[in-house]
Amino acid sequence: MEKKILLNEKDMPTQWYNIVADMPNKPLPPLHPGTKQPIGGEDLAPLFPMDLIQQEVSAERYIDIPEEVQEAYRIWRPTPLIRATELEKALKTDCKIYYKYEGTSPSGSHKPNTAIPQAYYNKKAGVKRIITETGAGQWGTALSFACSHFGIDCEVYMVRISFNQKPYRKILMNTFGAKVYASPSTNTQAGRSALEANPDTPGSLGLAISEAIEIAAGDEDTKYSLGSVLNHVLLHQTIIGQEAKKQLEYTGDYPDVIIAPLGGGSNFAGLSFPFIKDKIEGKSVRCVAVEPASCPKLTKGKFMYDFGDTQGYTPLLPMFTLGHTFTPAAIHAGGLRYHGASVLCSQLLKDGLIEANAIQQLECFEAGVLFAKAEGIVPAPEANHGIAQVIREVNRAREEGVQKNILFNLCGHGFVDMAAYQDYFDGKLVNHSFTDEELTVALKDIEVLQPQ
Amino acid sequence: MEKKILLNEKDMPTQWYNIVADMPNKPLPPLHPGTKQPIGGEDLAPLFPMDLIQQEVSAERYIDIPEEVQEAYRIWRPTPLIRATELEKALKTDCKIYYKYEGTSPSGSHKPNTAIPQAYYNKKAGVKRIITETGAGQWGTALSFACSHFGIDCEVYMVRISFNQKPYRKILMNTFGAKVYASPSTNTQAGRSALEANPDTPGSLGLAISEAIEIAAGDEDTKYSLGSVLNHVLLHQTIIGQEAKKQLEYTGDYPDVIIAPLGGGSNFAGLSFPFIKDKIEGKSVRCVAVEPASCPKLTKGKFMYDFGDTQGYTPLLPMFTLGHTFTPAAIHAGGLRYHGASVLCSQLLKDGLIEANAIQQLECFEAGVLFAKAEGIVPAPEANHGIAQVIREVNRAREEGVQKNILFNLCGHGFVDMAAYQDYFDGKLVNHSFTDEELTVALKDIEVLQPQ
Repeated sequence: MEKKILLNEKDMPTQWYNIVADMPNKPLPPLHPGTKQPIGGEDLAPLFPMDLIQQEVSAERYIDIPEEVQEAYRIWRPTPLIRATELEKALKTDCKIYYKYEGTSPSGSHKPNTAIPQAYYNKKAGVKRIITETGAGQWGTALSFACSHFGIDCEVYMVRISFNQKPYRKILMNTFGAKVYASPSTNTQAGRSALEANPDTPGSLGLAISEAIEIAAGDEDTKYSLGSVLNHVLLHQTIIGQEAKKQLEYTGDYPDVIIAPLGGGSNFAGLSFPFIKDKIEGKSVRCVAVEPASCPKLTKGKFMYDFGDTQGYTPLLPMFTLGHTFTPAAIHAGGLRYHGASVLCSQLLKDGLIEANAIQQLECFEAGVLFAKAEGIVPAPEANHGIAQVIREVNRAREEGVQKNILFNLCGHGFVDMAAYQDYFDGKLVNHSFTDEELTVALKDIEVLQPQ
Repeated sequence: MEKKILLNEKDMPTQWYNIVADMPNKPLPPLHPGTKQPIGGEDLAPLFPMDLIQQEVSAERYIDIPEEVQEAYRIWRPTPLIRATELEKALKTDCKIYYKYEGTSPSGSHKPNTAIPQAYYNKKAGVKRIITETGAGQWGTALSFACSHFGIDCEVYMVRISFNQKPYRKILMNTFGAKVYASPSTNTQAGRSALEANPDTPGSLGLAISEAIEIAAGDEDTKYSLGSVLNHVLLHQTIIGQEAKKQLEYTGDYPDVIIAPLGGGSNFAGLSFPFIKDKIEGKSVRCVAVEPASCPKLTKGKFMYDFGDTQGYTPLLPMFTLGHTFTPAAIHAGGLRYHGASVLCSQLLKDGLIEANAIQQLECFEAGVLFAKAEGIVPAPEANHGIAQVIREVNRAREEGVQKNILFNLCGHGFVDMAAYQDYFDGKLVNHSFTDEELTVALKDIEVLQPQ
């Protein structure tokens, strides 16, 4: 048996899978924050091209991947499915562990799976420039490459503290031709106000979103782009799980457990949704979303209507949330520090179709170092959450005396995140839990937002 | 046609190719610097295990890859051969450009191809600890992973200026379990002397080699390991070219030109040697080694006996050299800043079986940025030299009105080298050429070393 199960390009899926078609309870509609009435696609038109808006509200089970997008995907896709033989040896387990490796992409993570189609549909709509925000930089890198590929200008508002702490990410974006601004910037009213209030502010993802939206909304040739949370973003990521399914067919194994970290939800959705389809049809498979204990929206948040951004510019979304003003503890997995979970993942959790688990960062880094030594890939800090859960599942299987097939998404490598590992080795990282009381504060704030 | 030509693990070559068997003029023997007589294998026994010494002096055409090494190779091998479709479009050329991509390895370069067998043979010989030096850190990272895999301790002496400037590389080595010391250190006599003479010395590769050799020679359970130059190192890298040959067979194309950067020679040898075998047998194929203009040993050096290290601890090797006391200009492709070329590559150049070309670093970075935008992989600064030569070949083909098949080795990615790109974007990089007079100084010094 080969360690790496490879797929030929001609066998790459040609459609994305839209789980909305199969969900027993359809997602509740987004609401206008003023009227509390469902919003329509036209409300999103200033920010997104119509093709993406149609995907956002679509109930079609499969949506064709345009030929130009398939061609761009082939720059790095299909990605390998790898049997974690060396990790299995290190854990002395008879469980079979497989991982889908998304780190071979231009940005080193799963993000280009949606950056490419988003850039494509914008290009098709005549858009000249795309603005986005980025926290740790993974999303900004992916969109920079995608815009370069389709010949669109790209500008990225990068949270100032990351801009200063993660210079390699900024340089990567520059290499792909994007302009990168530290946020808050003097380019926008939102940025100037923030700088006036506090010239030394480290910035925040919420503020960077405000800056990006402000520019996109004010310029006809410019649109906005988001790297997670939205339905169309999760849709694009389903290429991951569909490939993994085909690859697993070659092995004859079907997973008992599927694991992926969850920040906004696109990584988890990408791997799991095509398998949740099977589960809805009666197949036995557990899907576990892993979140950091320092941002426990799935395990300790509430299912409520809330804003997608910190400033309250977006429609109200029905989701598991800690409240849009909640500030997660400062951990190194920046991609998982988001207050809410996507509408689709939230509904699935509410309906018991997926599980959730929260893990502390020290356990995650310990798992990541073990994985790196065994499999030769240093994982991104986000990905370590999935690996920690894999090890828990292996231990549980041992206790229960059963053999399991485990599949997880290694969503990215950590070459640009080595400073996090240094902090771990230096003993500078700590675990962090919020008290129940601390977790109610931001939730109380959003009670007034709920429709009657 | 697929963009990525993949090889199944079961089709991975099971033997290394030893070009010595086919060379029309065999390489001259290494000499003892005192007696100027050929040295024997036993002279190397304090530093290397016997299996590696036998490979160093072997004339067998093919040498079996041990099963344990094959299994470890399968962690990341076979590596993809990729048709550079997007680069071809960017260059508007009808030339077919293929690249073998070695960046998917644990260290992100071709270096583990030899680190794995070196660690294996040391383990087999009962060695408990391997010491090495590293400049920019690629080799140290590869050996750290290999030693971790086979359960041997690994200690790396990293040139102090790199230790300070490239913290990510050090952390990578730590993640794979190695101890990393800034060189000069207080662990060795050589290090202590250097620090006494100049407490602020930036260190040098030559000095780091001295430290590593001093420790290895003084401890029975400890051996030394080198990442390039030596025959057995080049031998191990031939897995690259053998895989590429099989992969090209699927396409029906045979290369007209083969291109790779040359520092010590292992990257170039790895890709080209299996094709030079064809050339010796009468096939028409050009093999071009690319060096930085700031260290032009192949194009402006002399074929002479010289030391392999700066301090003069090694045997005398017959090679194209600038003299072991030559100091290359400070450029960002640290892996190419070596005063000499491996014995095997030097003999092949002398015999006209390979060509050499020197390129300035600004042209190389320009080529690298073009490649990154097109193909979605940011190349290591060393790899940019190959890409610059590819572009020259494409332009030449256009001028001559011919179509060519071009194959080059993308020996590693640049995720850990982004600071170099920032310097390039900031205009801080300059071209550098030595005058003929400057190039004679260090060569004059070694005239006394030549055998009569």
